[in-house]
Amino acid sequence: MKTVIVTVGKEVLTGKTINTNLTSIAMRLNQIGIDVNRSFVIDDDKEEYYKILDFIDEDLIIFTGGLGPTIDDISRETVINYFGVETYINEEILKGIKTYFDHIDVKMENTNNKQALFPKNSIILENKLGTAPGVIFKSKKKTIVLFPGPPHEMFPMLDKLIEYLTEKLNIKLFSKGFKLVGTGESTMEQSLSGFYQFHTNVNIAPYASVGEIKYIFTSDNQSDLKCSMNEFRSFYKEYIYGDLEDTLEGVVVKKLAENNLIISIVESCTGGLLAGAITNVSGSSKVFNESIVTYSNEAKIKYLDISLDTLSKHGAVSEECAFEMANNLYKKTDSDITVSITGIAGPTGGTEEKPVGLVCFGITYKNDTSTYKKIFNGNREMIRRRAVIYALNLVRKINI
Amino acid sequence: MKTVIVTVGKEVLTGKTINTNLTSIAMRLNQIGIDVNRSFVIDDDKEEYYKILDFIDEDLIIFTGGLGPTIDDISRETVINYFGVETYINEEILKGIKTYFDHIDVKMENTNNKQALFPKNSIILENKLGTAPGVIFKSKKKTIVLFPGPPHEMFPMLDKLIEYLTEKLNIKLFSKGFKLVGTGESTMEQSLSGFYQFHTNVNIAPYASVGEIKYIFTSDNQSDLKCSMNEFRSFYKEYIYGDLEDTLEGVVVKKLAENNLIISIVESCTGGLLAGAITNVSGSSKVFNESIVTYSNEAKIKYLDISLDTLSKHGAVSEECAFEMANNLYKKTDSDITVSITGIAGPTGGTEEKPVGLVCFGITYKNDTSTYKKIFNGNREMIRRRAVIYALNLVRKINI
Repeated sequence: MKTVIVTVGKEVLTGKTINTNLTSIAMRLNQIGIDVNRSFVIDDDKEEYYKILDFIDEDLIIFTGGLGPTIDDISRETVINYFGVETYINEEILKGIKTYFDHIDVKMENTNNKQALFPKNSIILENKLGTAPGVIFKSKKKTIVLFPGPPHEMFPMLDKLIEYLTEKLNIKLFSKGFKLVGTGESTMEQSLSGFYQFHTNVNIAPYASVGEIKYIFTSDNQSDLKCSMNEFRSFYKEYIYGDLEDTLEGVVVKKLAENNLIISIVESCTGGLLAGAITNVSGSSKVFNESIVTYSNEAKIKYLDISLDTLSKHGAVSEECAFEMANNLYKKTDSDITVSITGIAGPTGGTEEKPVGLVCFGITYKNDTSTYKKIFNGNREMIRRRAVIYALNLVRKINI
Repeated sequence: MKTVIVTVGKEVLTGKTINTNLTSIAMRLNQIGIDVNRSFVIDDDKEEYYKILDFIDEDLIIFTGGLGPTIDDISRETVINYFGVETYINEEILKGIKTYFDHIDVKMENTNNKQALFPKNSIILENKLGTAPGVIFKSKKKTIVLFPGPPHEMFPMLDKLIEYLTEKLNIKLFSKGFKLVGTGESTMEQSLSGFYQFHTNVNIAPYASVGEIKYIFTSDNQSDLKCSMNEFRSFYKEYIYGDLEDTLEGVVVKKLAENNLIISIVESCTGGLLAGAITNVSGSSKVFNESIVTYSNEAKIKYLDISLDTLSKHGAVSEECAFEMANNLYKKTDSDITVSITGIAGPTGGTEEKPVGLVCFGITYKNDTSTYKKIFNGNREMIRRRAVIYALNLVRKINI
C-alpha cells in the first residue's frame, strides 16, 4: 500500500515547528508493514492542495494540520471537495463542539460549524482534546485520512487508523520490541548481520538515541516473532532493559521499589541530572529521599569527608574519589544503595591524562563499593547525558 | 525567490530520524526574507528524484542527504545529470577525501571518487567534518544546492549559502532578536498587535518553546530594526533575558559570576533539575558549589531542620516550607543566594486545595527571604521544566 503523508502548515515551512507528526505516523505505519513513499509539507493555500493532490499517486493519503476553526484552516473542505464526495453535517459532533466551547466558557464562532462537515460513509475520529475531529474516507480506490496538527490531538486518532488499516488490509502483523543500553548501534548491527539471515520473516529495525537503542520486531507470524525475540534476548540479555514502553529510570525505580531499597546519589559533573532522572518517575518517592550535588572540592569535603589526601593525590575526578563519595554517602545515610558521579564534562578542564569526557562512578550496596571509569564522546550535554545513563545502568545491573 | 527543500532519506520516511534539517534551513532562509514554499521527503531512488524535479517549479532548490559514499547515495550524480550541466572531477577535493581516509586509517573505496564530481562553475561547499562536500550551481535560471544529511556537516555549509544568497540577491537584511521568559506567546501576541502596525518595515516573528519565547526581528533598514527593537525592549524589558545566542542559565551564571555571588539550591519536586540546569553552563563552578535534593519530609528535616510544625500545619508544598528551605539553607551554607523549590509535579498527589502543578519557591539574598506560589500547566515533565525556568528567572531578576 503506497502511502504519502502531507503536513499542512506555514509553521513547519518557517522552521517554527519541527515536523514530528511525520516521524510518529511513519514509525507506526512501518510497524504494520506499510512503507511511507514520500512526504510533503505545504502551505495552507487551496491551489497548493490541488497541485499536490494532482501529483500524488499513492493509495493511502494522510493529511495532518489545517483542521482548526480559523479561516486559514481549509484542509477539511478542500480535500473533501477535491475528491467530490457527498457530504453532511454531523449534528452530534456539532453539539459536542458547542459543549466544548461552553465548557471553556468561550463563545463559539460560526466558523467552527465546518468542523462537523464529513463525507458520507466516512469514519469519524473523535477529538477529546480539541474541537477538530479527524476522518477516514474512501474515494476512487484511495483511502484519505485527515488528522489535526497538534500531536496530542493526533495520537489517539493514529491508534484508530492503525486499528482500521490492520483490520481493513487483513494485516496480521505482530510488533514488539526491546530497549537496550550499554551498547552502540554500529556494534549491534555488526553483531546482528548473521542473526538477520536466520530471521528473514521478521523485520527487525533499530532506532538509536543518545546512549540507548530500541529494536522493533515485526512479523506476520507470531511464532517466528517469538522465536527471533527469544534468540535476540538470549544473545543480548545484558543490554536489554525493557520493552518499548519502558524507560531506563522507570525500570530502575521499579527494581528498587520491588526490593524495598532506598537509593541516594552524590553528583559532581552531572550536577543533579541523575537525581533529576530518578525523580522523572512518578512514585519515585518510594525509593528516593535525598541527594547531594558536591560540585566543588569544598562541598565534597563538607558533605562527605572526602580525604584531602585523595583529592591531592588522585584529584576529584578519580576512581578513588568516586569510591569515597559513594562509600561515605552510604555510611552517612540510611540508604541501601548509593551512587557517585565525578567527571570532566568539558568543553574545558581536560588534560592529556584526564581528557574531557572522563567520568568516574562509585556504587555502594551491602557495604561493598565498586568503581568504574569511562570516557564518553560528544559535547558537554551529551557527556552528562551518557554519564546519567551509565549510572542508571549500573543500578539496573546490581545483583540483589 | 520561491524555494523548495527536498530531504532525501529512507530514515526520515521510516520515522527513525526527525527532519530537523528542514527546520534549520527554513529558519535561516526566513531571516533573510526568503520563504520556503514547499518541502518534500523522498526515498533515494533515481526515478523519485526525476518525478520530483519535474514537479518542482521553484527557483531555489535545496537538497539535503544522499551525498555519502555508499551505493544508495545518488543525490550528486542524479541531480547534476537531471540538469544536464557539464561536470569535472575536482582533484583537490579528491586529494582531501584521500587524506581524510588516511587520517582515520580506513581504506578509501572507489565509490568515494564520486564525491569529487562537480558541475563546472559551481561553488564548492567544503566539508570539514565528513567526506561529502556540498555544492551550489546554476542551471536554467534556477539555483540548485546540495547539502549532506548529517546536521553538523550541513550547518557550516548553510552559513555559506546564506552568505551567497545575501550577496547574490543583494539582500541587505539585518536580523537580530530577543529571548523572553515569564510571559506566554498568546499574551505577547495580543499585546503586540498594535506594535506590529507601527513597524511594518520590520518582520517580527515569535518562536515559542516550553516556558520561553524568542522574537526574531528582520529588516532591510538597520535604523528601522534598531528603532523597533528599542521600542520592544522598553515595553518588554522585564521579560527579555538576552540575545538569541543566550541561554537563561547562562545569563544567570554570568550575572552571579560578575557579582562574585555563590548560589546554593534545595529542590524537592524538580529533584535536581535546577542544579542540573545551572551546571549545564561551562564554568558554573565559579558560582556553584553545592546543592541538595530533599525529596522526602525526613530529608527536609535532616538537612535543613524544617520545623515539624510547618510540615504538619502547611505541608511540604507550601510557601511556609519553601521559606524555611531557602532560609535555612542560607544559614547553613556560605552562599550569597539560596533558592528552594517544592511542589506537586503529578500526575498523582494533587488535591482540590493543592492541585497538580502547584509549585512554591523561596529565594534568600542578603538575609532576606521571599516566597512565590505558581500553578503550572502540562504533564509532569513540563511542570518540572516550567518550575526550573521560573526559579532561574527569580534569580535573574534579583536586585543586586
